[in-house]
Amino acid sequence: MTNAMLCTGLFGDLFRDAEIAREYGAEALLGHMIAFERAWTGALAANGIVTPAEAEGALAALAGFDAAAFRPQSDRDGMAVPSLIAQLRAGLATGPARAIHSGATSQDVIDTALVLAGLSVLALLEARLARLLALLDGVKADFGMAPLMARTRMQAALPATVALRVDAWARLLQAQMSRLPALREELGKVQIGGAIGQREAPGDEAVARHVAEALGLRLTPVWHGERSAMVSLGHWLGLAAGALGKIGQDVALMAQQGLDEIALTGGGGSSAMPHKQNPVLAETMVALARHVAGQQGILMQAMIHEQERSGAAWALEWLTLPAMAEATGAALRHAEALIAGIERIGTPG
Amino acid sequence: MTNAMLCTGLFGDLFRDAEIAREYGAEALLGHMIAFERAWTGALAANGIVTPAEAEGALAALAGFDAAAFRPQSDRDGMAVPSLIAQLRAGLATGPARAIHSGATSQDVIDTALVLAGLSVLALLEARLARLLALLDGVKADFGMAPLMARTRMQAALPATVALRVDAWARLLQAQMSRLPALREELGKVQIGGAIGQREAPGDEAVARHVAEALGLRLTPVWHGERSAMVSLGHWLGLAAGALGKIGQDVALMAQQGLDEIALTGGGGSSAMPHKQNPVLAETMVALARHVAGQQGILMQAMIHEQERSGAAWALEWLTLPAMAEATGAALRHAEALIAGIERIGTPG
Amino acid sequence: MTNAMLCTGLFGDLFRDAEIAREYGAEALLGHMIAFERAWTGALAANGIVTPAEAEGALAALAGFDAAAFRPQSDRDGMAVPSLIAQLRAGLATGPARAIHSGATSQDVIDTALVLAGLSVLALLEARLARLLALLDGVKADFGMAPLMARTRMQAALPATVALRVDAWARLLQAQMSRLPALREELGKVQIGGAIGQREAPGDEAVARHVAEALGLRLTPVWHGERSAMVSLGHWLGLAAGALGKIGQDVALMAQQGLDEIALTGGGGSSAMPHKQNPVLAETMVALARHVAGQQGILMQAMIHEQERSGAAWALEWLTLPAMAEATGAALRHAEALIAGIERIGTPG
Amino acid sequence: MTNAMLCTGLFGDLFRDAEIAREYGAEALLGHMIAFERAWTGALAANGIVTPAEAEGALAALAGFDAAAFRPQSDRDGMAVPSLIAQLRAGLATGPARAIHSGATSQDVIDTALVLAGLSVLALLEARLARLLALLDGVKADFGMAPLMARTRMQAALPATVALRVDAWARLLQAQMSRLPALREELGKVQIGGAIGQREAPGDEAVARHVAEALGLRLTPVWHGERSAMVSLGHWLGLAAGALGKIGQDVALMAQQGLDEIALTGGGGSSAMPHKQNPVLAETMVALARHVAGQQGILMQAMIHEQERSGAAWALEWLTLPAMAEATGAALRHAEALIAGIERIGTPG
Repeated sequence: MTNAMLCTGLFGDLFRDAEIAREYGAEALLGHMIAFERAWTGALAANGIVTPAEAEGALAALAGFDAAAFRPQSDRDGMAVPSLIAQLRAGLATGPARAIHSGATSQDVIDTALVLAGLSVLALLEARLARLLALLDGVKADFGMAPLMARTRMQAALPATVALRVDAWARLLQAQMSRLPALREELGKVQIGGAIGQREAPGDEAVARHVAEALGLRLTPVWHGERSAMVSLGHWLGLAAGALGKIGQDVALMAQQGLDEIALTGGGGSSAMPHKQNPVLAETMVALARHVAGQQGILMQAMIHEQERSGAAWALEWLTLPAMAEATGAALRHAEALIAGIERIGTPG
Repeated sequence: MTNAMLCTGLFGDLFRDAEIAREYGAEALLGHMIAFERAWTGALAANGIVTPAEAEGALAALAGFDAAAFRPQSDRDGMAVPSLIAQLRAGLATGPARAIHSGATSQDVIDTALVLAGLSVLALLEARLARLLALLDGVKADFGMAPLMARTRMQAALPATVALRVDAWARLLQAQMSRLPALREELGKVQIGGAIGQREAPGDEAVARHVAEALGLRLTPVWHGERSAMVSLGHWLGLAAGALGKIGQDVALMAQQGLDEIALTGGGGSSAMPHKQNPVLAETMVALARHVAGQQGILMQAMIHEQERSGAAWALEWLTLPAMAEATGAALRHAEALIAGIERIGTPG
Repeated sequence: MTNAMLCTGLFGDLFRDAEIAREYGAEALLGHMIAFERAWTGALAANGIVTPAEAEGALAALAGFDAAAFRPQSDRDGMAVPSLIAQLRAGLATGPARAIHSGATSQDVIDTALVLAGLSVLALLEARLARLLALLDGVKADFGMAPLMARTRMQAALPATVALRVDAWARLLQAQMSRLPALREELGKVQIGGAIGQREAPGDEAVARHVAEALGLRLTPVWHGERSAMVSLGHWLGLAAGALGKIGQDVALMAQQGLDEIALTGGGGSSAMPHKQNPVLAETMVALARHVAGQQGILMQAMIHEQERSGAAWALEWLTLPAMAEATGAALRHAEALIAGIERIGTPG
Repeated sequence: MTNAMLCTGLFGDLFRDAEIAREYGAEALLGHMIAFERAWTGALAANGIVTPAEAEGALAALAGFDAAAFRPQSDRDGMAVPSLIAQLRAGLATGPARAIHSGATSQDVIDTALVLAGLSVLALLEARLARLLALLDGVKADFGMAPLMARTRMQAALPATVALRVDAWARLLQAQMSRLPALREELGKVQIGGAIGQREAPGDEAVARHVAEALGLRLTPVWHGERSAMVSLGHWLGLAAGALGKIGQDVALMAQQGLDEIALTGGGGSSAMPHKQNPVLAETMVALARHVAGQQGILMQAMIHEQERSGAAWALEWLTLPAMAEATGAALRHAEALIAGIERIGTPG
């Protein structure tokens, strides 16, 4: 769902992420959808289902498509694909019109576009994770030997050093980094099932193979009703956000006066108490982690995807996944700023 | 969290609601915040804490505040209040500056503004519920006597009439309507606790009483860390969205070919199967209901609001409540269109 | 769902509550179900639907029913009512057999039994809340004037006293206490809808009124598919558990070495660090609160209760509500022990 | 949390699974815990940290341990390990006593025991999945060519055959089967971190390696605060339960009168309508799937595991994972019975 309040700027960019949002914006998504249609037309031509001339007409229409002028009737159809196809075919002769989208269905286009968007998002998040790990390396180099009381069950346990805590943070982030190849493999698949999730007509497999190759995605059996990959993307986002939430919680605890185990630049001000330096970014990381975690419990309901295609279950993915990605992205951005702003860490001398 | 994809227009307004969003927009929220500050300054003057002249200077600044030019440093502070106060006081002499916000804290402003926004949202939703109930009256008048097979556990149970089903829908909606007075009573309270949730200084109660009256809200003990009212707002939204989800699920089931118990205008088209009329609004109502329900499980975590004020738990309310309100609003709008579009209902002759 | 691990005793009674569990045990639930059937037979007789002699035979069977020997075939039917009725009628002549359950349905029995169980649970929880509030009074009397640093956003804010914190805890609990009358009113209603949620036959309303009076419950329109009251019970449990989770979180934070704002008897031991006194009860209260909160997001899905009766949505109530009640009960028990075990509270001199 | 109602038998075994429950029972868990301690003592001896004689005394105590007589003081400690160690060491001389558990901590024992329990559960579930897939093969062999209307967005789409639907079910289950090797690899790791999650003393790594080998588990860096593997177990359970929920939803929809696309043996009876055959198992599969899905949103909160060990976050795993496993197990059992009970499937002639 949209959340108008968090878009007002009254909370700055604490709860949003422009870079991730762009990957789910109209331009990016329409770009992926047109890429699918181009690959599809190419596949129809390559397999002799349409003539080279028909394909040429279709590809010209696809190349000349004006995303900015596109006006979808999505309320009625539940998504933009029917009106997109109608607009792409408008004014074309029957042959070229037939060379666009024929044999594909809306779900093929949307699912594939969201796979491509998901992969782009993962690339952005991976780069941020790498930068964050480098920042942690710096903290360890600077303060790793400083004493820090280890705490278990919120109680002082045994004296240790900052390295114990920072290493744990780094391992937690690296663990999520190291999941990315398998996640990309799982997620990076084209959706091609046509009207009812079949690829049974002669040539269907060949067309599908062509489209997959053109888009750089794996070809798997149809997954119209097999939503594991999308839910696994949410799982990863929840793990990554959760790792950041743990770091945020640790930092907020360390920043307590009386413990003073960390000193940060750029803490938030208070309208009532000018002396305060609130660990706003750390707290926000905790809130974002809880929000993403809870959303996974909603996204997972999308597995109950009835029959050959469910409008209701499918929409749950749209309601959650982009929001989870933006939240994880925002948390990563905050983590970079937070760790970069460590002035001192460890039990005060 | 924001969800960029649902703001693209590629899904029309299926997952958003402009009218509800406006109530959580910058203009509306800043308006509530300024209203709080005006009431506060008035209270300080009425209780002799600032002089009439100081109050006059402060009120002039408040009246002349340019919301459009306001630029918050919210990222650092976690919210817009500190920078708002700084901007309001900028250029004022010490006296009038002191007549703005002195003794209040950011949480007082934000909580009160969100109470006012919540009450506005409830008024909008109530009006929609009333219209929806009127539409159901019309359906009952037109088709109530038509036969309809009652179904329990998804099995044909006993022959009944359309009135059985439509009455159940109406009762479910009326039940949520009838909760509104108690909810307004619970929610409609001013937040005044100052820095640490106390009202102990001489005059504190008098100031608080003045502010409450000026804003038309109840005065209760401080609720900085007592978040039940916000969670109860989410409860109502979840019940209302859930009621609509039940109606949407029923309609989607009735629309199945083979049963054909309902005929609708305006069903969604398919890019692959032009003969289809998809019950898009009904499905979307189900998805929105599941999403709002799941978010309540996140919002309720906000009860664990540590110490005198929690940045992390508090932010969970912001991440969920506006989104839940927009989703419920969208579902109500869809319900109106869906019920208005019933061409026939009941077991076909 | 059952959770075998938490029943092993390896975690003591940390995650269970024998007293609450008893209210959802076979004996209590069967007792409520038989009470419903007795009231029903009485209503049939009072309204001349069965003869006094038939009712007498039926009531004898109900009185002689051996709950301990009852063997349900619930797997097949999804619940115990069909086999219960079959067993009650076994061996009776047609007349007395007809005087049992005729016109009622399984959902009437189960829903009403769960209302009665819910009311019993609320009585137990209310008594615990009252005891807990008395304990807090004692803490305030003993330590209310002791200094305590107020903390906002996990930062030292301003010096205050223990009373500030303890009063906030007490208000939070009282707020939940004060909701109980309205909740009892909402929940305390008989379910009578027969096969498909109708009360249209002559005499139906009179029978229903009789049953409601006999059971001390309100008579309302049928609520087979209107599940708000059950979801509101969950809402209350979540608020109560959340209030306790906040107290647990506060205590765990106060118990940190370096702050030492609270000294507790009976902290948990460590297998590796004998010097530690872990605030196990406080931590468990936090975990239970998060668990109950999250379950509300599942329970609320039960609003999407399709058609005249949904087996799937209905079962979600059974999977969540008893567990939420036990968790809330356990948290309340822990809170009593925790608060009773406060040896000292406040900033150390 | 325990759910007393679902243990009464009034709902049969619909919401529980004896075989899975056994894996989380006291005997199984204590068995794993003793296995850990035996491996630990062996590792201490193998690395010269205790003498052979001391180890022999310790191993004798471990072999003679009477799990049935074990009485934990878990309420105080939050878990059974401290009292288990005390009881194991009782009566031993200092040397053999020191050869038990020295250098390990409670979390090492519990986490490792839960890994072993999780692996046992996965083996059971895998066997059921394999049986279920074989049953689907049979359905396809018998009815695959029968006509079935494909349905998208709950609307008739295009004529197809039963094979389209059954193949989709099988692929969905196979997808979860094929995840098991990677999940076992992820989950199957020993936990060894001692008091504060370090392995820094001389010999620590060698001891850890010995224990891992003895238990047939991987040795990885300490994961006291890195809970991804436990959350990934929940992810898999949610995917598996979700796949079954989809099948249950499909079957319930196919069983609707008017469509009559499936005929089942053993449907549930109604106390009010003896003619009905309710698809109780199918509905229950949907409810269990929604419950497991929602719990994943709670379990994932466990990632926010503060400092070196969190009692609160850790307990969230215990409150959810065993329940999720039992629910998934029950759903699998129901799926076997449901599919085995298909008498006819496909659009009626």
